Amino acid sequence: MQYEKDKQDYFIYIEKNEKVMHSLTKFCLENNIQNGKISGIGAVKMTEIGAYDIIKKEYLKKEYSDVFELVSFEGNVTLKESQPFVHAHVVLSDHNMITLGGHLFETTVAAVGEFFLRKFEGNAYRKLNRDVGLPCICLENKFL
Amino acid sequence: MQYEKDKQDYFIYIEKNEKVMHSLTKFCLENNIQNGKISGIGAVKMTEIGAYDIIKKEYLKKEYSDVFELVSFEGNVTLKESQPFVHAHVVLSDHNMITLGGHLFETTVAAVGEFFLRKFEGNAYRKLNRDVGLPCICLENKFL
Amino acid sequence: MQYEKDKQDYFIYIEKNEKVMHSLTKFCLENNIQNGKISGIGAVKMTEIGAYDIIKKEYLKKEYSDVFELVSFEGNVTLKESQPFVHAHVVLSDHNMITLGGHLFETTVAAVGEFFLRKFEGNAYRKLNRDVGLPCICLENKFL
Repeated sequence: MQYEKDKQDYFIYIEKNEKVMHSLTKFCLENNIQNGKISGIGAVKMTEIGAYDIIKKEYLKKEYSDVFELVSFEGNVTLKESQPFVHAHVVLSDHNMITLGGHLFETTVAAVGEFFLRKFEGNAYRKLNRDVGLPCICLENKFL
Repeated sequence: MQYEKDKQDYFIYIEKNEKVMHSLTKFCLENNIQNGKISGIGAVKMTEIGAYDIIKKEYLKKEYSDVFELVSFEGNVTLKESQPFVHAHVVLSDHNMITLGGHLFETTVAAVGEFFLRKFEGNAYRKLNRDVGLPCICLENKFL
Repeated sequence: MQYEKDKQDYFIYIEKNEKVMHSLTKFCLENNIQNGKISGIGAVKMTEIGAYDIIKKEYLKKEYSDVFELVSFEGNVTLKESQPFVHAHVVLSDHNMITLGGHLFETTVAAVGEFFLRKFEGNAYRKLNRDVGLPCICLENKFL
């Protein structure tokens, strides 16, 4: 993994065979990034994605060993139990340009992983919301 | 809806059962955000998306009542008839990780809605372009 | 093509019949943007996308003449052989809301092209990585 910093923006390159979620989470932890926005593209393999079942309150999960283009990665960083936590959703495409998508559990870089992280100076954290069944974001101000 | 602000960046959490486009538009209106970039992820329901038919100059529309992961939301804020107007495109994924996409008319949060809005200090507005058939963005500088 | 600038952020409107990759690359060249993040939405035609075959070390390519919604465009700017180079991945959707995705070679605006470019003050450049088979991003700092 390599990176460069420009004020609150980080350009991050995750290298072949490195795990994306593990690397980004560790990067936030060691660089004191508690809140932020992450987006990126690349080519990945050994991917586990899922969809949240709002009735059963659990994730349906699927694993894919194939190489996919990572055509969209969009996520955020918040504090969960006082540690930086990365939540990201992805769209993948195969060699026929067919797409798949979901909540990202983990994926490994197959060729390249090119990301931008923008640090947000805030106090966003996650707390279990029993109605939703997930640790949901809590922010300082209410609107509406 | 909850939010936090860091200079020109807003972290926005749209809560279960709140409408996404309505909430974001109202937020821009009440916070004096005339131009900006919005992106996000979440899980949504009761979604209407569309595709623009450039020949008929009208949107084809489809409605989905099911819950989908909101795997990509990318949009912008401009002024249309002097009011903040949100234009966004989305990618959704179902419980089989199959994706759908299009121009977003409206969707409702089914579990969580996690967005970033970056305010752009500009004068971007939309004006009907008869050739395109849509209110198109007008910016200050020409290039090429 | 039209644009507006707010510090390091550029709001860019690519007009009907203009090529997206060509226009963005030229914009970076003439505005001295060596590194950056680009995202956007729109409606496009005459699109060539691909997927990287990590075994053969070459891109599989497909061309589409149809009009698609550009539902996600995510990319970056780095220096390649000392010139600004745009690398972008896209998700497209058709009139049935079915999606396609891949590495973007080129596409032409069919209706509108709405982009944000955030300049990154950095030294990111690409250099051939023989293991990957592609010019890969090199950044100043190593991590992990």
